[in-house]
Amino acid sequence: MSSNVVWHSHPVDQQTRAAQKSQEPLVIWFTGLSASGKSTIAGALEQILTRQGYHTYLLDGDNVRHGLCKDLGFSDDDRKENIRRVGEVAKLAADAGLIVLTAFISPFRSDRRIVRDMLPQSQFVEVFVDTSLKVCQQRDPKGLYEKAGRGEIKQFTGIDSPYETPEAAEVRLEGGTQSVAESVNQLLEYLHNSNVLKAGYEPISINA
Amino acid sequence: MSSNVVWHSHPVDQQTRAAQKSQEPLVIWFTGLSASGKSTIAGALEQILTRQGYHTYLLDGDNVRHGLCKDLGFSDDDRKENIRRVGEVAKLAADAGLIVLTAFISPFRSDRRIVRDMLPQSQFVEVFVDTSLKVCQQRDPKGLYEKAGRGEIKQFTGIDSPYETPEAAEVRLEGGTQSVAESVNQLLEYLHNSNVLKAGYEPISINA
Repeated sequence: MSSNVVWHSHPVDQQTRAAQKSQEPLVIWFTGLSASGKSTIAGALEQILTRQGYHTYLLDGDNVRHGLCKDLGFSDDDRKENIRRVGEVAKLAADAGLIVLTAFISPFRSDRRIVRDMLPQSQFVEVFVDTSLKVCQQRDPKGLYEKAGRGEIKQFTGIDSPYETPEAAEVRLEGGTQSVAESVNQLLEYLHNSNVLKAGYEPISINA
Repeated sequence: MSSNVVWHSHPVDQQTRAAQKSQEPLVIWFTGLSASGKSTIAGALEQILTRQGYHTYLLDGDNVRHGLCKDLGFSDDDRKENIRRVGEVAKLAADAGLIVLTAFISPFRSDRRIVRDMLPQSQFVEVFVDTSLKVCQQRDPKGLYEKAGRGEIKQFTGIDSPYETPEAAEVRLEGGTQSVAESVNQLLEYLHNSNVLKAGYEPISINA
């Protein structure tokens, strides 16, 4: 057996994994009403970051609700457990050295606090997509507000379940008036100023 | 606003993330008795892969039982749910483009089958660390077999809870007789022959 490559018992840790990717691990946690624009903005930001060479991962209802959290419904307890698990997975993905984006309504302050407390301060950014209920109801891309208004969906955030506005989110996006490009650029500027993005950034425009 | 960088609505997918890392996503699922050597071998393999430029992540009891699965105990139902969640997280991490290693006893065939079925065939490798109960009991690094023997730990795999031997694991390691280096080299050879590792590999020796 060759002894050219020698293994020492230093486990691979977050720092090693992040350094390999030339980046600082981070969780960018989007919160806001249904149809506020969370997933769209997060997806656009992820694409720009990936193009710039960052290693990202986006967690949202699509890849969590049918898998990891498929045993959970929409009661207060289940929503709380849903956000807890998403927080834990975001933490693991950040431990893997990734820049993690999450797009969940996450309506309760206490749940967002629990997730924030899981991570070092420098690794958590809360982004409030502040789109008014009225605008969200007008968009209603999946007809959910209409169904909730007719009582066909219960415990729908903004209708018969509260949304607790963030009090100290690192970033607030005016989701009702800003374009997706404007929101992404605001985020890029924030991340740049926070030294998360090492290189300069170029503002983008959207051609969706 | 500059229009140099234009965003198109193509979400970042597994293929994009894996290509960025110049690798094929994969879950390497280690199974075997407590003290069989799963974590040690997985950790050594992770380190070698990382040094070779692969982007990996290791899931084990240390980073899961105190976080994502801290609400679970060791009853059959809780073990089943523990493995299901780990499987779902491994799937997400593979979706992020990573080579994922997991080190859990995962004693039940049905649970390992559930995880296997979550992933495309090419993205799942089951590794049976086949170390005899006698050897594991002699090692007993945490004194768990001794406690289980005295009845202080209940439902301990191999003592009063069954370990169901894999029938068709892709790799079987003789954990009782092979050194860690030999096991890692066997795995590197398997991954190389399966075209998971693009470059040739150099056998390692261990200097723990």
